[in-house]
Amino acid sequence: MTDRKEFRDLAAPAAAHGAIDSLDLDPGVEEIALADARGRVLAERIDADLDVPGFDRASMDGYAVRARDTFGADEADPAELDLVGAVHAGEEPAVTVEPGTCAEISTGAVMPDGADAVVMVERTDVIDDDGEPPAGDSDDSGDSDGDRIAIRTSVAPGDHVMVAGADVAAGARALGPGTRLTPREIGLLSALGIETVPVRGRPRVGIVSTGDELVRPGEPLDSDRGQIYDVNSTTIAAGVEEAGGEPVLYPHAGDDYEEMERLLTRAADECDLVVSSGSTSASAVDVIYRVIEDRGELLLHGVAVKPGKPMLIGRLDQSADDDQSAGDERGESAYIGLPGYPVSALTIFRTFVAPAIREAAGQPEPRTATIEGEMAVRERYGEGRLRLMPVGVLERDEGASDGSDGKAGERGTERPLVYPVDKGSGATTSLVEADGVVAVDPDTEYLEAGEPVTVQLFSPDVRPPTLLGVGEDDPALNRLLDRLDRPRYLPVGTREGLRRLRGGLPDVAVAAGPTDRAGDAVDLGGWTREWGLIVPDGNPKGVDGLADLVDPERDLRFVNRGTDSGLRASLDAALDEVAADRGTDRRELEAAIDGFDLTVRAFESPARRVLSGDADVGLGLRATAERLGTGFRPVGTQDVRVLANPDRVGSDAIDELEAVLTAAIGGPDGDRTRPTILDDLAGYAPREE
Amino acid sequence: MTDRKEFRDLAAPAAAHGAIDSLDLDPGVEEIALADARGRVLAERIDADLDVPGFDRASMDGYAVRARDTFGADEADPAELDLVGAVHAGEEPAVTVEPGTCAEISTGAVMPDGADAVVMVERTDVIDDDGEPPAGDSDDSGDSDGDRIAIRTSVAPGDHVMVAGADVAAGARALGPGTRLTPREIGLLSALGIETVPVRGRPRVGIVSTGDELVRPGEPLDSDRGQIYDVNSTTIAAGVEEAGGEPVLYPHAGDDYEEMERLLTRAADECDLVVSSGSTSASAVDVIYRVIEDRGELLLHGVAVKPGKPMLIGRLDQSADDDQSAGDERGESAYIGLPGYPVSALTIFRTFVAPAIREAAGQPEPRTATIEGEMAVRERYGEGRLRLMPVGVLERDEGASDGSDGKAGERGTERPLVYPVDKGSGATTSLVEADGVVAVDPDTEYLEAGEPVTVQLFSPDVRPPTLLGVGEDDPALNRLLDRLDRPRYLPVGTREGLRRLRGGLPDVAVAAGPTDRAGDAVDLGGWTREWGLIVPDGNPKGVDGLADLVDPERDLRFVNRGTDSGLRASLDAALDEVAADRGTDRRELEAAIDGFDLTVRAFESPARRVLSGDADVGLGLRATAERLGTGFRPVGTQDVRVLANPDRVGSDAIDELEAVLTAAIGGPDGDRTRPTILDDLAGYAPREE
Repeated sequence: MTDRKEFRDLAAPAAAHGAIDSLDLDPGVEEIALADARGRVLAERIDADLDVPGFDRASMDGYAVRARDTFGADEADPAELDLVGAVHAGEEPAVTVEPGTCAEISTGAVMPDGADAVVMVERTDVIDDDGEPPAGDSDDSGDSDGDRIAIRTSVAPGDHVMVAGADVAAGARALGPGTRLTPREIGLLSALGIETVPVRGRPRVGIVSTGDELVRPGEPLDSDRGQIYDVNSTTIAAGVEEAGGEPVLYPHAGDDYEEMERLLTRAADECDLVVSSGSTSASAVDVIYRVIEDRGELLLHGVAVKPGKPMLIGRLDQSADDDQSAGDERGESAYIGLPGYPVSALTIFRTFVAPAIREAAGQPEPRTATIEGEMAVRERYGEGRLRLMPVGVLERDEGASDGSDGKAGERGTERPLVYPVDKGSGATTSLVEADGVVAVDPDTEYLEAGEPVTVQLFSPDVRPPTLLGVGEDDPALNRLLDRLDRPRYLPVGTREGLRRLRGGLPDVAVAAGPTDRAGDAVDLGGWTREWGLIVPDGNPKGVDGLADLVDPERDLRFVNRGTDSGLRASLDAALDEVAADRGTDRRELEAAIDGFDLTVRAFESPARRVLSGDADVGLGLRATAERLGTGFRPVGTQDVRVLANPDRVGSDAIDELEAVLTAAIGGPDGDRTRPTILDDLAGYAPREE
Repeated sequence: MTDRKEFRDLAAPAAAHGAIDSLDLDPGVEEIALADARGRVLAERIDADLDVPGFDRASMDGYAVRARDTFGADEADPAELDLVGAVHAGEEPAVTVEPGTCAEISTGAVMPDGADAVVMVERTDVIDDDGEPPAGDSDDSGDSDGDRIAIRTSVAPGDHVMVAGADVAAGARALGPGTRLTPREIGLLSALGIETVPVRGRPRVGIVSTGDELVRPGEPLDSDRGQIYDVNSTTIAAGVEEAGGEPVLYPHAGDDYEEMERLLTRAADECDLVVSSGSTSASAVDVIYRVIEDRGELLLHGVAVKPGKPMLIGRLDQSADDDQSAGDERGESAYIGLPGYPVSALTIFRTFVAPAIREAAGQPEPRTATIEGEMAVRERYGEGRLRLMPVGVLERDEGASDGSDGKAGERGTERPLVYPVDKGSGATTSLVEADGVVAVDPDTEYLEAGEPVTVQLFSPDVRPPTLLGVGEDDPALNRLLDRLDRPRYLPVGTREGLRRLRGGLPDVAVAAGPTDRAGDAVDLGGWTREWGLIVPDGNPKGVDGLADLVDPERDLRFVNRGTDSGLRASLDAALDEVAADRGTDRRELEAAIDGFDLTVRAFESPARRVLSGDADVGLGLRATAERLGTGFRPVGTQDVRVLANPDRVGSDAIDELEAVLTAAIGGPDGDRTRPTILDDLAGYAPREE
């Protein structure tokens, strides 16, 4: 019941947009050097202040003539003119072309007085008094006075002459206000001799992250004190820059009222907009709330959009003794408070804040900011408020079929597949596993598989992956991925990977060890890896193998991998064998292992626990032991297999993967001129077919 | 015959791409601050070096508990636990949760020893020893030791806890090489505490413009010496930046061999690639050619692509005493020579050079670099070599029909219209009148109207206009254009504008004065303007009207507008009247006017000639006379009409224009809260209907 009341108090998304529109972010007009103007937006119309060209200009190499002197001339009956001089580009003509004469002229040179046309050099000959080519070198044009020129064509007045102002006339409109300056506009402005241009300013956006636990990247982290690196400040700063604003990072604020007030007021003094991202602690948000109410005006608190509940919109007064913002009489700054979780913060920023920054900077919404796709899976919703659902996008080439029908793909352009990404919004990795958000209306109950949706990409520069892989994590696989163009790989483990592959969305799953049925997945190849027990260097506790691990007398602290991991599946199988040998049950052996249920996430994680002294034995790879310099007791060798979604076989993505995989493993068909992905990985070998 | 031989010597475009591919532009790897990394491309894979989070972390506000203590608890029968302390985000837990106890915990805080789950605060109550809420303020959590907490739900181990490494595990692959860094990747790298990242360097590209006539924007221009502002250096510099390179501008080089050699060697020492743009003078190109042959290697001279004939590709040796390029052992720089005309230079740059710079910088080709359209007109070709044809693009909304059939448009998405722009490649204005180029194969004889074509935009930031207008130039029109979003207007004059409108391509034509038939064009509105004779301030020669102008005794130097201009049409009509009054022929009167055939391009041009003393009388507008402070003798008033292409009526572009026009003229339906476009324009008035 409490929830319902709270929901009813939230502002509609349109009201949030309206409140933001009412804020003044306008940074005004800035005069900048043309060399720095690429990508900026003209604040005013630019009219030409001079004629381009500024003089009548030869547009061919040849001879400047009076056109009338050439009338009737042709190959058979050339006109013959006295050469009276030469004019080169960049010099003032020293000659006048009188009737019956001509002057040599270079492209770009000023037309000499008297001349009104140019005959191109190819239609002329230097001749002597008899009308024949002279004995000397006819190309020696350095000192040609006294020569005569045969003109073998007739020209009209203006031929091969660009008259002054023909390109741009003084007083003409050159570029309109709102024009975005790309290289070509910069070229035109250069032609007009313009050195500085009036452009829309870039709104200054102050960024304040709140939370005592935040540490800036590069500084040491004290995990015991629960410190984490600040993600939102840098993410939002990059987003501000991308939208055409100028980000200004402020020190982290704790939840002390005085400190927060000082910081926000300073940011308001110096910026057009202040953006805070709430820490995960509610008290900091409460403090900000109070500061905005005391030192400005809170327009809106909470928006009926998931994840916009903690959003704040308001204004902040600038300080009275406002000597920092010299000349700026406005006296207040806009304020927007974002949620604390990174994906939520970026989602709200992208949806509500970035458009306002672009508007203030005069920048258009980039054409690549959205992408049309279709739902890969059915997604239930029905939450009663607008949801900005984080989604991943998977591009499909023409050879791939929609996985939902299981048939070979029809050729043709297929819309990218769109699938929800929901790891809990606190996860930073969601940032790169999601490509954008789909806005789902409050009254939508389901999004059907195949339903067209528009994805608002997190950034116009986001390029969705062309290959989606899931499954085991493995160091050789990491190297394989390095050789592919824009892959996305989710290390969810072998069991979960195969489950997802059967669901039809991924292109491939990578499976290690004994596995569940892989359905009709197509084996593209793979390798083997040696696994066993990671122990400290020198093996101080003399662990020899599984027998020691399951010996309750040994009191060894173990660290395991989760049940989705292929390493865990191999360990379980090995324990089954030990149990069978002893005529007992695996569960019993497991119960004897201290830490058997302590599972960690990645292939190196158990080894790192052993290294840090938190465990005596960990499940892991020989390759990891060698890399990290720990001891290793081998237990077995397992296959790692790259399994393709049968519906995607024949797609460019799978074809490329297969080719790269073959080359990367260096089998009989492999490319031996390049290191294989297995080189220097202890315990790794090509799979024997 | 000469031409054919020359053509046979030109390299195929593929050979040019091959030669460029053989050049080494690789700038190497650069380590830069994460804050500066947006848009850059990772040079190496980044693996996580730490767990994120680095500790088991509460993901809800509530109470840290031993899950086992809550088993079986529900609303009716809560578990009651002793509160032993509190843990906030950013602090080290000072308590241990023993069986039967709990600790208050904030989102983001470190889980205290003993606790393995969090119960969210909403499912709990603070109680007294009787199990009832205490008499005091239950929200006072500041000092809660000694309180008891009723837990009204059961939780499982791990509930509302993000275990260490659950987001990113140390050793896991975070981002692959070649990843372009957008805000979200920067967020992930921040979470990993990464302060600097290894990225692909930006190739340094030295830009050398040749030509004694070139002057850098901002410096004074001497038109008498044939000087022009350098367009290519700034255009190419902006293009280099856009492609991910770092432009370095060098001083202009004349065509002196020693100077050119010094300049090119210096640029080669300092850059990965040197790009020159030939001046229009052939001798400068010859000098460069010799320098490259002497001081490097010329791989290719001339490409069989229009306009690539003067293109050069080669290598330049760096100087022996090479102390500038410390640490760089390569000893040579790549070299590419571009044509001199701006549109040609940008075309060749975009087609051959920009891809090589992007490749070296690791940047992908932007998704917006090309656009699919269809030919608006039939274009004949058949030149026997690849043509990179400059084209304009016109976007069409769903309401517009293809002008070629003259029928009302079908609703649906229509491809943008593409039309050739050929003003002679020397024109700077072609830079902004063309949006890109269409590659036409050597064996193509015709591009048919309606034929689909791919336009390579001059820049990924180019946005084709949504409205194409042609016709008269006019100061009120300029203001009208300022109020539209991305219009393109070609001031070709009234007569040529109407001709083009009848041809079907433009959306509107603007016509002034007595005109040819406008076909079935739709009149959207307009205004009137007063025209007459511009004379110097104070009218020193006492010009009263046309009678003076046609008086051969007066010896007045006149400057006229071209026959396409509506002003000229009105002048001709007025002269017709004078001739009729005198019983003579207009031609006779014209012959008496000194300078009648001296026509200049824009509405202000004659007035500027009068101002500069080059003429005694010019054809022009009262508004121009007032603006420039000249004298004015009125002759008449003419209509300026905005005429729509009948096939486009109903399109968004025309609808918007009509609405803006109505508001801008401020007629009965106009918006009087904003200045009209006629305000302060002397001699302008709304048209009477």
